[in-house]
Amino acid sequence: MPESSSDPSNGAGPDSNKGEFQLIHDYFQQQPLHRSDVLLGIGDDGAIVSLAKEKQLVLVMDTMISGVHFPDSTSAYDLGWKSLAVNLSDLAAMGAEPAWLTLALTLPHSDEQWVQKFSHGLFELASRYDVQLIGGDTTRGPLTVTVQAHGFVEQGQALLRNGAKAGDLIYVSGYPGEAALGLELIQSNNRQHPSFELLSRRLNRPIPRIELGLSLSGIATSCIDISDGLLADLHHILDDSGAGANIWVDQLPVSPAYQAVANTESFYLPLLSGGDDYELLFTIPANKQDEIAQIEADISLTCIGEITPGKGIQCLDPSGKKIEVARLGYDHFLEA
Amino acid sequence: MPESSSDPSNGAGPDSNKGEFQLIHDYFQQQPLHRSDVLLGIGDDGAIVSLAKEKQLVLVMDTMISGVHFPDSTSAYDLGWKSLAVNLSDLAAMGAEPAWLTLALTLPHSDEQWVQKFSHGLFELASRYDVQLIGGDTTRGPLTVTVQAHGFVEQGQALLRNGAKAGDLIYVSGYPGEAALGLELIQSNNRQHPSFELLSRRLNRPIPRIELGLSLSGIATSCIDISDGLLADLHHILDDSGAGANIWVDQLPVSPAYQAVANTESFYLPLLSGGDDYELLFTIPANKQDEIAQIEADISLTCIGEITPGKGIQCLDPSGKKIEVARLGYDHFLEA
Repeated sequence: MPESSSDPSNGAGPDSNKGEFQLIHDYFQQQPLHRSDVLLGIGDDGAIVSLAKEKQLVLVMDTMISGVHFPDSTSAYDLGWKSLAVNLSDLAAMGAEPAWLTLALTLPHSDEQWVQKFSHGLFELASRYDVQLIGGDTTRGPLTVTVQAHGFVEQGQALLRNGAKAGDLIYVSGYPGEAALGLELIQSNNRQHPSFELLSRRLNRPIPRIELGLSLSGIATSCIDISDGLLADLHHILDDSGAGANIWVDQLPVSPAYQAVANTESFYLPLLSGGDDYELLFTIPANKQDEIAQIEADISLTCIGEITPGKGIQCLDPSGKKIEVARLGYDHFLEA
Repeated sequence: MPESSSDPSNGAGPDSNKGEFQLIHDYFQQQPLHRSDVLLGIGDDGAIVSLAKEKQLVLVMDTMISGVHFPDSTSAYDLGWKSLAVNLSDLAAMGAEPAWLTLALTLPHSDEQWVQKFSHGLFELASRYDVQLIGGDTTRGPLTVTVQAHGFVEQGQALLRNGAKAGDLIYVSGYPGEAALGLELIQSNNRQHPSFELLSRRLNRPIPRIELGLSLSGIATSCIDISDGLLADLHHILDDSGAGANIWVDQLPVSPAYQAVANTESFYLPLLSGGDDYELLFTIPANKQDEIAQIEADISLTCIGEITPGKGIQCLDPSGKKIEVARLGYDHFLEA
């Protein structure tokens, strides 16, 4: 990273751990990947990259704080993975191809083993998508990770939130709600549950939908990643597009693990408002369903509703009757 | 900012202040400046910028934590200013022209007045250099500010740390040590001191040496900004360049305010190891002194030494005798 800010001279006085933090800082230089467009990486006042002509640059930034955005018990490896994954997910939602990341890592104390594991998680995911760490800052303080990721889109090809039109179909990738159920199992320390491994992994090692985002360029009229929850993120699309939506509740994707863990009383709640899934939620014109079918060969996609000319979201049962989300228990559809 | 991560669903459970943080997040959209290369700013999953062809992109990132990098008493306005200034200073040290910034702001509680003042300080400095805030993240936690700044250099024209050669002259801008003395006055609550205003301003409102950095392109063989202290940062240049240096202590720039406040026993210590000044320290070939003279019309520059073939730094008195830095009291040169 360009600068370690654990400076002996900065602001509130000396920091005796400059040397230790320098070690950590140096540690991140040992990454496996070297992109040809990175002219100068970690080690000077800044990084230098060459720019791909005819492309536009997409920038995303996310902060994760211990006890706020992840349980204190989260492993260093998982945190390294996830802090990058949530950013790559934002790039995916923009239809961008990832390129570089910067990392601001604040640690309560220097712990080389912890940093080693953190970097392994980070670099494991970074390598998958050809993303290089090019700079950042290491500081002492409460455990906080801010990652900025950078990617490219062809001119005018980025996926935005504001293009959904009445009649468009609403799709979601994967199985939203699994991450929230994973958190439930972790918080109740239910490690014996047969779905514990799968669901806690959904929470801690989300897979950013980069390939899907790239495939949706020229097809999707709007796109967002599900970090706040399916309905909340759909609201972002609707607000920006000036439209409403019908959600066909019986069409929502429910995985076997979800079915095994979700509380029957509020069965659809994790799916509709759980968040932290980093699946993509997007809209397409109805006449582009064939193109979606081709993408579905590689990834689970589900059509869950349609954009309406109105305002707000209505959740509908198979007969077209409106259902209150709070009443969306499992039984509702067993009865229906 | 693209995403507020104070998500009701994230990691360790609900955050009831989502609404308040959303206000803060929206607040940053009211900035005065709009660059033509910013195609999409705050409000989607990411920002989109167009790229200047034939240029290289320089990226810098710095984190500032309350009580570590600035006194808790620092005003919101000053913190907004300084959190950007330290990053622009890194761009200056690379000889880059600033363009965009992203901001990860972690606040213990949502305080719209505080954020308003913080943003005023940030935007005041940003406007001076035509820098636009294009994204970031607002979260709840201990007061922490991470800024990433982006700028441009012509291909191959960035100022690096590794080009200093034996015989090069060492220059410094302004009056290093004033920020450290400002911190001393603040910490001893010596507000009545005639130099309090000037020196505390040096600490809290550093002026990034952007114009100087741009002027040094093609002249300087190495450059760094003084954040760790003059000697520490000179060591960075020497380590990367594989060289040594002589510092002519009687040539060091001492301002009247510095002279009035610095302890006579350790007179040169703040100047040599104070840090937080964000002045530029750079080297030039001896035959480029005329070009420096032209730049000096606008900014105070002082030649303080020369690069040597050896290793390490020697501080010399006017007779060429080596002096221990620890013994660099004011009296030393009164006697000399």
